[in-house]
Amino acid sequence: MSGVLNERACQLTEQLLARSGELKVFPHALENGAIVVDCGIETPAGIQAGLLLARICMADLGEVKLVSGELDGQPLPYLQVQTDHAVESCLLSQYAGWKIDVGKFFAMGSGPMRAAAEVEDLYRILAFGESPEKTVGVLESNTLPDVNVVEKIAQSTGVDPKNIMLLVAPTSSIAGNIQVIARSVETAMHKLFESKFDVHRVQAGFGTAPLAPVAKDHLTGIGRTNDAILYGSAVTLWVVGDDESLQEIGPSLPSCSAACYGKPFLDVFAEANHDFYEIDPSFFSPAVVTLQNLETGNVFRFGEMNPDLLKQSFGL
Amino acid sequence: MSGVLNERACQLTEQLLARSGELKVFPHALENGAIVVDCGIETPAGIQAGLLLARICMADLGEVKLVSGELDGQPLPYLQVQTDHAVESCLLSQYAGWKIDVGKFFAMGSGPMRAAAEVEDLYRILAFGESPEKTVGVLESNTLPDVNVVEKIAQSTGVDPKNIMLLVAPTSSIAGNIQVIARSVETAMHKLFESKFDVHRVQAGFGTAPLAPVAKDHLTGIGRTNDAILYGSAVTLWVVGDDESLQEIGPSLPSCSAACYGKPFLDVFAEANHDFYEIDPSFFSPAVVTLQNLETGNVFRFGEMNPDLLKQSFGL
Amino acid sequence: MSGVLNERACQLTEQLLARSGELKVFPHALENGAIVVDCGIETPAGIQAGLLLARICMADLGEVKLVSGELDGQPLPYLQVQTDHAVESCLLSQYAGWKIDVGKFFAMGSGPMRAAAEVEDLYRILAFGESPEKTVGVLESNTLPDVNVVEKIAQSTGVDPKNIMLLVAPTSSIAGNIQVIARSVETAMHKLFESKFDVHRVQAGFGTAPLAPVAKDHLTGIGRTNDAILYGSAVTLWVVGDDESLQEIGPSLPSCSAACYGKPFLDVFAEANHDFYEIDPSFFSPAVVTLQNLETGNVFRFGEMNPDLLKQSFGL
Repeated sequence: MSGVLNERACQLTEQLLARSGELKVFPHALENGAIVVDCGIETPAGIQAGLLLARICMADLGEVKLVSGELDGQPLPYLQVQTDHAVESCLLSQYAGWKIDVGKFFAMGSGPMRAAAEVEDLYRILAFGESPEKTVGVLESNTLPDVNVVEKIAQSTGVDPKNIMLLVAPTSSIAGNIQVIARSVETAMHKLFESKFDVHRVQAGFGTAPLAPVAKDHLTGIGRTNDAILYGSAVTLWVVGDDESLQEIGPSLPSCSAACYGKPFLDVFAEANHDFYEIDPSFFSPAVVTLQNLETGNVFRFGEMNPDLLKQSFGL
Repeated sequence: MSGVLNERACQLTEQLLARSGELKVFPHALENGAIVVDCGIETPAGIQAGLLLARICMADLGEVKLVSGELDGQPLPYLQVQTDHAVESCLLSQYAGWKIDVGKFFAMGSGPMRAAAEVEDLYRILAFGESPEKTVGVLESNTLPDVNVVEKIAQSTGVDPKNIMLLVAPTSSIAGNIQVIARSVETAMHKLFESKFDVHRVQAGFGTAPLAPVAKDHLTGIGRTNDAILYGSAVTLWVVGDDESLQEIGPSLPSCSAACYGKPFLDVFAEANHDFYEIDPSFFSPAVVTLQNLETGNVFRFGEMNPDLLKQSFGL
Repeated sequence: MSGVLNERACQLTEQLLARSGELKVFPHALENGAIVVDCGIETPAGIQAGLLLARICMADLGEVKLVSGELDGQPLPYLQVQTDHAVESCLLSQYAGWKIDVGKFFAMGSGPMRAAAEVEDLYRILAFGESPEKTVGVLESNTLPDVNVVEKIAQSTGVDPKNIMLLVAPTSSIAGNIQVIARSVETAMHKLFESKFDVHRVQAGFGTAPLAPVAKDHLTGIGRTNDAILYGSAVTLWVVGDDESLQEIGPSLPSCSAACYGKPFLDVFAEANHDFYEIDPSFFSPAVVTLQNLETGNVFRFGEMNPDLLKQSFGL
């Protein structure tokens, strides 16, 4: 009964709970003992809550900071992420790959509870799983999950409901917006994973993405946060191995490798009848990916920034 | 007998005192038991002391960092501030609104002792006050306050002199310069307050301002630090409510809305016979203010940077 | 038997050891009780290990951060350093001035063990030395030191081998690359020291340098990390004293004051037959040095950035 990802994330969640007033998050105890933490539905959770959410998503194996940057000459905050454990923090924990679908409740689940559930192929392929005593997950949703949702998570993870903590933030909230845009390195890692690249070749990652203005609703939020990554993020990965494989896979890594590149994400989403699975999966990528080969010292950069599209998407 | 702003700030002050050697600050115990901490008069308090001073001013409800930036293509350090409690940290604590005038001693007082004194109209209007057991204040001054100054603060705050801590830094010192330039978000909040805007609509704030070179004397220091804010700071506020009120108040928010905009602060100050109260109060504003409406998703940006004036003011 | 530099650095090293798994560093206990920590030879120590190494080098009297920057319009991580104790952290601890030459083992030693050994003239000139019970040093090397190396360090420092900790990182590793490029302020301080400037006039320092891509081997690593400092670092020093001495020494401070300026470091190194001591010592300087005089308020900037050379050196 153990698991370092869940242990680290649960410890950080307990720190978040101890500072709930200051962080403006609101914990609810459900009848089955689970803790559901409102991080932006009925409560004005802010920047610090969002940064902590992102770190909890990453199992506390990375740093997430708000930094100052600029877009087309105008100042704009950016999110900066760094990790020495890109596979564990990004793929095995942060990636929002677990569809939680119970009655009317739907949310994409992220965080280390995924590693306890192991319902995604990713865990089989990467041969990883945890059997923790306590678990924590992050849900991108406008509504709080109820006991039935927790029950489903308990069954999948094998964790007692009273040891389950769920952090919930809408995309269109300060904290939810931050935790999504903190996925620059994760997006690069997932693209590599989907491309059958040996992700364990990645030793460290560093990424930035512009902090999109918080949207008025879920759909617009999906548009802006995706555009922030697709058209505004820059990721550096330090990798080992040969150069040839990097040069081969490189051109397919950035978002501009997809045919639908160049349109706001919401347009692409509409053309796909608002079905994520109809979108060219190669589109989900950072704007710029830099691969630094630790063994040869060679550096390969792919992709390009698209500030004009960002200004349009962000309403600037 | 309580008050969260004073409690938080006093705790952080005790951390500062425990590291006084490393921070190069020097605490003096007065006869009445008060602690007066020299942060730059006779002691070379530095960057870390300045960053801590700024956080104490904000009742430890915000983050303050030195970051790298540039001015007209040349590298220059900047100060970055972020807070999820803009009313509490900036208006109820950080704003230097309490005139401390005892005998020959004069200083503008900031920090949470203001919330215990409640001598400013701001506390009546925002319906806030604290009755703490311990209190801490920050004084921008070239001389240390004596027992008479402490006595006056004790009377106003209702705090026993032995439970009063005063941190003192000249404008023309490394730490004092930092704590003033850390007021980008505060300046935007105060401008909103003076404009009768409902400041509780602000949920979070983020700001940057160039770290002006430390000046040789108090007057030049006032000039440079004001210019850093007026001509070089960019503030983003996340607000709720309607767009119309933002569009209406917006054009009056940045410093360029004032008739005296475009001159170095010291020139404006001289024209006002060195009387702050003679200066158009609408001038005290960040260079650029961005309002992000969390409810509508719309973004409004007002103002402009003035790098030429900054280079002149900073002697670059 | 004391010494604050060694005490601070040893405490931070113990924190590093407590997190060795997460930091991907590997401690070896030698037969004589010394701890030798592999930070990148056989183990993939990463970004956090590198940042900690740099802070240990500085006796925990400074901050070191990875920040986002750009080179010729393309995003690139930078290293940012700040200190309120430039003499202690940079000259008395961080400078890699102790040649450790035992049998086939050779490395430049840095960190506070230098202050216990006092074999360099610098300690006589600055009248400083420590007699610590425990000591820690950082070695830039591709091989781990053995008991004989430790024995030599024990003799020079007067510290029992069982109380000696050595952190080892190759230049061509993530962590080693970081700890070298974290030497922007140190390089400026050492240039001042070599120029017979009274280094105690410096009250605080702030510097940035581009994070060069990790090189494939030691020699290329030396080239890239030196180029990062020589052609890409910007350092601000806050100093006291007169302006004349600053204006006099200023033009000789930045790297462009050397005749060999303008070539990649490796070319200069080759022309010197790969003998550091044959290179014009005035070349070892930041690209840009800004001196802010705290007493006069005047600012003096010397040098220039060379992005074209950096792109060539970094293979971008």
